[in-house]
Amino acid sequence: MKEEAATRICSVANAIDILGDRWCFLILREAFFGVRRYDAFLGNLGIATNILSNRLKKLVENRILDRIKDPGDARRFIYRLTEKGLDIYPIVLSLMNWGDKWLADENGPPLVLHHNRCGHHLEPVMSCAHCGEKVDPKEVSYQEVYKEKVK
Amino acid sequence: MKEEAATRICSVANAIDILGDRWCFLILREAFFGVRRYDAFLGNLGIATNILSNRLKKLVENRILDRIKDPGDARRFIYRLTEKGLDIYPIVLSLMNWGDKWLADENGPPLVLHHNRCGHHLEPVMSCAHCGEKVDPKEVSYQEVYKEKVK
Repeated sequence: MKEEAATRICSVANAIDILGDRWCFLILREAFFGVRRYDAFLGNLGIATNILSNRLKKLVENRILDRIKDPGDARRFIYRLTEKGLDIYPIVLSLMNWGDKWLADENGPPLVLHHNRCGHHLEPVMSCAHCGEKVDPKEVSYQEVYKEKVK
Repeated sequence: MKEEAATRICSVANAIDILGDRWCFLILREAFFGVRRYDAFLGNLGIATNILSNRLKKLVENRILDRIKDPGDARRFIYRLTEKGLDIYPIVLSLMNWGDKWLADENGPPLVLHHNRCGHHLEPVMSCAHCGEKVDPKEVSYQEVYKEKVK
């Protein structure tokens, strides 16, 4: 590989290629709120049907959502987060947390999260799994394992 | 506001409107790696100059990057993360972590992060600032403070 054709590609780029879409994230947000049915996504998001169908299809193809028969109505389908989908939760939480802090207007954040486990308002914080401390970008270095060509 | 026109808008939507772009995230990733100069962004990302200029302008307008005179060369400018920009780190980390786990090929993750504070490989985990436990979506509920119209 010629050096000038190599760039630092990491999983951020790959993740954004799959998730970097306003509607995908809003569908996932709703899924984390417990929404499972097409009509509920449609009503909650004010999204056009063709866009909703397209994004649900993409999320199913990428194995982020499972499309399964509705246990309550065999003629219909529901969309359920897979394990891969459930793992997106930190991304949704960190987007929401940043938006709450930096983009909310004078009304404050439109949604407040509650951590049922400890009974307090949920303030998500990115920590190191080893030492438990909050991760500060100034305390992180990286090692390039390999380079990839730009796709 | 008529009920059918109201949807659950939260800060996720607002954050994605500003950040939901592959190139914005890749520029931010580079900034977190310490990149400050236009030519370095250009070389590391293999990005077209018009796209790079456009995204840098957008990030400066949104006060995520500061465009300041290069202390080493007054004819040039550097781009530096603001406090608002530094706060994006958990989003970048969670995207990278999810991509490493679910999208990496047989070579494994192309980049490995090191937590200099504790000396270990960095495995970022989203925790509750109050109790310190890892946040599980099944243990979180939400309260809708107010609804907004779809923009």
